[in-house]
Amino acid sequence: MEVFIEPIGRLMNEFSKLPGVGKKTAQRYAYRVINMSEGEAREFAEAIVNVKKKVKFCKICGNFTEEDVCEICKQRDDSTICVVKEPKDVVALEKLHEYKGVYHVLHGVIDPMNGVTPNDIRIRELLDRVRQGEVREVIMATNPDVEGEATALYIAKILKPLGVKVTRLARGIAIGGELEYTDDVTLARALIERKEI
Amino acid sequence: MEVFIEPIGRLMNEFSKLPGVGKKTAQRYAYRVINMSEGEAREFAEAIVNVKKKVKFCKICGNFTEEDVCEICKQRDDSTICVVKEPKDVVALEKLHEYKGVYHVLHGVIDPMNGVTPNDIRIRELLDRVRQGEVREVIMATNPDVEGEATALYIAKILKPLGVKVTRLARGIAIGGELEYTDDVTLARALIERKEI
Repeated sequence: MEVFIEPIGRLMNEFSKLPGVGKKTAQRYAYRVINMSEGEAREFAEAIVNVKKKVKFCKICGNFTEEDVCEICKQRDDSTICVVKEPKDVVALEKLHEYKGVYHVLHGVIDPMNGVTPNDIRIRELLDRVRQGEVREVIMATNPDVEGEATALYIAKILKPLGVKVTRLARGIAIGGELEYTDDVTLARALIERKEI
Repeated sequence: MEVFIEPIGRLMNEFSKLPGVGKKTAQRYAYRVINMSEGEAREFAEAIVNVKKKVKFCKICGNFTEEDVCEICKQRDDSTICVVKEPKDVVALEKLHEYKGVYHVLHGVIDPMNGVTPNDIRIRELLDRVRQGEVREVIMATNPDVEGEATALYIAKILKPLGVKVTRLARGIAIGGELEYTDDVTLARALIERKEI
């Protein structure tokens, strides 16, 4: 005898496909759905189908949008392009309400170990934008890990000849962080790149 | 400008209704759905609607079932009834492959502070089962917390006059646990209920 009846097992299996969701969590989620009203469950299901139907990638920056071109590309200063790995990085930056330029989502970083070459991410599209537009600065905001750094350097190298300024997010000790718990590489970097006060 | 476009915000809102899911997790889940194929997303949505359509409560024990009466009630020894708070407790016990009797799901415990009286949970149904059937033993397997204990005692009190044996899951130090980290109440109880070896 199976511990879970088929419809519950099936829904648990679907929830397990979400990142970080194990069997126990999937069970809790499934039980929550069973306790929803039928209307609530239908709305939940519709939101899933709806997101697949409505969400597209912006033709210019590659971020999520409902139209051909996203609101950011339509409205903002396109002389500065901030290059990120994924759409979620745009969210992290937008939350600051600090940046006024546009974005370019690579949808990945160069990672030869996992078979991701420069041709597999949206580098060509970035070059086209820089060549066509009045771009003055490209900010490389890929993650400060091996692949992110390599991708930033690779892109900087091919952008430089086009006469555009290429910058990188500052690295250093986290504000509010403690020296003791800062990893060695970051701490060394913060020391080398120390600034006069 | 909203950080999330409407279809994504809407799906995140739905995911936030799941237990323990905050905004950040909801975002990760929503992005995972966007990266699913349309077929996968449809299957996910269907599994949600399906679980609401198919899952009912067993007329006898109150556990989840696709039919009127669940497989456990149909097939197993109904002279022993194990009383639990929720369907998930049945899962925890079934996983042991140890218990051969049937269950009774109360769908709650007596909790006057939160307005849950004996009439709000399936106690009447349990009494009917004990009165009608050839029940020899009722195992009270509610949680070992205040409400669970009170509910177990309450039910034991009204079942005893019917001549049925009422038992309670053993309490004590957890196997593999350490005395040092066992809470005082449990440790005191384990001492009082010590057994000869």
